[in-house]
Amino acid sequence: MFLMESWYVFGWSYEVAEKPVGRVIIEQPIVVWRNVDGQIHAAEDRCPHRHAPLSFGRVEGNHLRCMYHGMTFNEAGQCVDAPLMAEAPKCSIRTYPVVEKDSWIWVWTGAPENADESLIPKAWGIDDPNKPMRSHGIEYDAHYQLIHDNLCDLSHVDFVHETTLKVASGADWSATEPNITASGRSIKYERWFVDAALPSDTSVRVDAWSTYEFVVPGIFILYGARFPAGTAEKCGYQAPEGVTPLFENIEQQAVTPISETKTAYRYATGLIMDAANVTDQVKARMEVVIKTFEEDRQIIEAQQKIWALTDPEMKKQFLPQDKGPTMMRRLMAKLIREQEAR
Amino acid sequence: MFLMESWYVFGWSYEVAEKPVGRVIIEQPIVVWRNVDGQIHAAEDRCPHRHAPLSFGRVEGNHLRCMYHGMTFNEAGQCVDAPLMAEAPKCSIRTYPVVEKDSWIWVWTGAPENADESLIPKAWGIDDPNKPMRSHGIEYDAHYQLIHDNLCDLSHVDFVHETTLKVASGADWSATEPNITASGRSIKYERWFVDAALPSDTSVRVDAWSTYEFVVPGIFILYGARFPAGTAEKCGYQAPEGVTPLFENIEQQAVTPISETKTAYRYATGLIMDAANVTDQVKARMEVVIKTFEEDRQIIEAQQKIWALTDPEMKKQFLPQDKGPTMMRRLMAKLIREQEAR
Amino acid sequence: MFLMESWYVFGWSYEVAEKPVGRVIIEQPIVVWRNVDGQIHAAEDRCPHRHAPLSFGRVEGNHLRCMYHGMTFNEAGQCVDAPLMAEAPKCSIRTYPVVEKDSWIWVWTGAPENADESLIPKAWGIDDPNKPMRSHGIEYDAHYQLIHDNLCDLSHVDFVHETTLKVASGADWSATEPNITASGRSIKYERWFVDAALPSDTSVRVDAWSTYEFVVPGIFILYGARFPAGTAEKCGYQAPEGVTPLFENIEQQAVTPISETKTAYRYATGLIMDAANVTDQVKARMEVVIKTFEEDRQIIEAQQKIWALTDPEMKKQFLPQDKGPTMMRRLMAKLIREQEAR
Repeated sequence: MFLMESWYVFGWSYEVAEKPVGRVIIEQPIVVWRNVDGQIHAAEDRCPHRHAPLSFGRVEGNHLRCMYHGMTFNEAGQCVDAPLMAEAPKCSIRTYPVVEKDSWIWVWTGAPENADESLIPKAWGIDDPNKPMRSHGIEYDAHYQLIHDNLCDLSHVDFVHETTLKVASGADWSATEPNITASGRSIKYERWFVDAALPSDTSVRVDAWSTYEFVVPGIFILYGARFPAGTAEKCGYQAPEGVTPLFENIEQQAVTPISETKTAYRYATGLIMDAANVTDQVKARMEVVIKTFEEDRQIIEAQQKIWALTDPEMKKQFLPQDKGPTMMRRLMAKLIREQEAR
Repeated sequence: MFLMESWYVFGWSYEVAEKPVGRVIIEQPIVVWRNVDGQIHAAEDRCPHRHAPLSFGRVEGNHLRCMYHGMTFNEAGQCVDAPLMAEAPKCSIRTYPVVEKDSWIWVWTGAPENADESLIPKAWGIDDPNKPMRSHGIEYDAHYQLIHDNLCDLSHVDFVHETTLKVASGADWSATEPNITASGRSIKYERWFVDAALPSDTSVRVDAWSTYEFVVPGIFILYGARFPAGTAEKCGYQAPEGVTPLFENIEQQAVTPISETKTAYRYATGLIMDAANVTDQVKARMEVVIKTFEEDRQIIEAQQKIWALTDPEMKKQFLPQDKGPTMMRRLMAKLIREQEAR
Repeated sequence: MFLMESWYVFGWSYEVAEKPVGRVIIEQPIVVWRNVDGQIHAAEDRCPHRHAPLSFGRVEGNHLRCMYHGMTFNEAGQCVDAPLMAEAPKCSIRTYPVVEKDSWIWVWTGAPENADESLIPKAWGIDDPNKPMRSHGIEYDAHYQLIHDNLCDLSHVDFVHETTLKVASGADWSATEPNITASGRSIKYERWFVDAALPSDTSVRVDAWSTYEFVVPGIFILYGARFPAGTAEKCGYQAPEGVTPLFENIEQQAVTPISETKTAYRYATGLIMDAANVTDQVKARMEVVIKTFEEDRQIIEAQQKIWALTDPEMKKQFLPQDKGPTMMRRLMAKLIREQEAR
């Protein structure tokens, strides 16, 4: 079961250049291509003639030609040319609303008239010299919901990432509960970690402000900031305002379901600072994030295998830290119910 | 759905020597073996004792012994020996009519009494010194019908093989329609390409005569000839007669379904000329064919993946060049209907 | 269909050290771990919280902590700790009766109250300096029943192992029938091979006494002994008593079903003799056993592929040597029927 009425991250902007790129999102084959001016387009990756993939095709000006037998489509998806035919046949391919924003290509898989760009969450982007970031993409052999669960409950950092991110953050993730607020398609998590570590020098003790937003289905935007010890108390344990952070780290992550058991995961990890000042120590910190996400992949794929052997009706034990995942699952269920009612 | 009443290419003659060879054709496990005199035999690849594969067995004179527990069968498939039994048990394995012809081993999967050798299409063979050929075998992760479609509409040469076979042939495959005629289990395609290239020197412009036959399910026999420019017109655009060609190329190809999603593809590509005269340029031409068939495999396997994600009821757009594939599909459907009626 | 009320070999004792080990037995995920004192425990490999595998967990004294979100369980499977909760939630994981015996870890998958340790067959173990053994583990892509069949009819040695074990044993396995007796969950096979080979010097002709026991589902314990020629007759073809063997070889093997098409196979092969006296020739003999079991794997996996293409109702031909496998299959069927009746 997928949420259809949604923007999904197709990929990084830099991944689509002269050649069309074909990918499967929520079991739909989709091709994304740029016309001669670099403008981006998305369509079903299936030529109406023999259902061959248009991602094997060729861009010709503002048109996309199927390189199996030559049918050609314009940006609106209409067939404009077919070999041996004086007049192009009246047929077309489904096009998808597509937007490039903050270094990602976003595709709307719902009814085109509902493609509201304001639903696209604000991410960091990877091209800002004052926000040096590294981008990655991995694939999970797991249902997207297991990845959502993981992202909506960071108490797992203390266990899954005991020797990686937990050390780098110097925080006790499972000992504190974030303040969680829902709004529209988004769930926001905020908290202070008093007596955390400064990532660029873990011997320095600081107060850490951590906030992230999970926008269903599958966008995760994190901001972390370190302040001198005592700042949390000074701010009355509210969001820091008017205080200069010692260190700021950011993440942008996207979970894009491919099928019921395969999921694409694209993320960037970085800092808010002048790129020229990025030291080896900071680079090492970025490496930690990559190891961290590999740890997530390993336990979630193992979890998927257990789920495959388990009666779906089997009860699960609720814990306090499940509040975040539960709110997210309810929100997803509500949106899918609304989708089915339409 | 497979056509059972048919000859299928099991493999190249040279592939079966002293050891039995086991393969799956239309989901049936079949073993082909040679007796002590080199005579070829085909049988179900399943010992009646424990259903182990006889292709792991050993030829003993005119018998085939199962090398799991020792049951032995004669050329008629009857059990002639079993360990510990004074008299062989009364049981047998199904045998298949099998013929070696034109370098291929042909197996009849229908009722033996219908195994009419005259239904075996005439191919080129690979042992004639005046027809130097190179043979290959690849496996497709695709339904055989998608490969049939490909072979019955060579307009795809202009697109799929734009930088390979199209260049080598110097012809506009998608701009002309062949003359198509059906007869029995065969569909024949003929046409002239005026102003094509001489494959051994693509700067020389020639008239090219192209003809190929597709015999369901899955034999493709091609003959191409190049003549001095003007020959097509001189022949009234009919088949060339009494004209000496500058260059003649031949192909023999066999599509053998393994399962609904796996297909074996065996082909030979060559020339009609004294093998001693084959130049590096001509050898290079043969390499082009190998690259060409790899291009086919890539787009067809990608097409198979799209089909797997597509409602089988989804309409396809008919184009003029679909005449050939449509005739072939109708012929296949008719033969399968007749088979079911029996 | 699996026999649930049974001991299964989870693995070799040496395979479980400080870290928990997770494996699937008869489609059940099971974790085996040692507490701080080295005592072994088995439980379902599924945390009640999010169904993540506990085999990714960490041993803490006498407890096992889930390293996804931190729930902790004692040796009885009860939850004793959960982050953020003053009192551990009242929940538990299923534990399995588990025993270490003769170098193997045995897990009982049936109702715990029926876990009768006396049902565990006596094996050789691999730690006795007077029984030097080499242990191995392989995985089959095959149903366990096909492996059982193989072990219960060693007439296949003459065919599958024609150039390996047959040569090393110098015996005619398919020309003689063993004496077979059933008792409880066990089937015993005994026979003399008159005029066999001495494995450490195959030119020496001896009388060989061969006996093995197959305990359903899947334990195979073999003992072979070589005596001077004439011993069989002297013993009246009964079990040798009071005669000193020239050479004694032993095997212990365990078939543990993972799923309907995957099976774990763990075995040790060795000798009864002072380890200091093991010569290169004897070592070479042990290598032969490894090759032998690889030959078994190859034919059985090929057999599995034929079975997958075969109507399960298709008749099989009974042969005299099927007495052993038939007794075993009947015993298995009876035990499974009894299990279903409960």
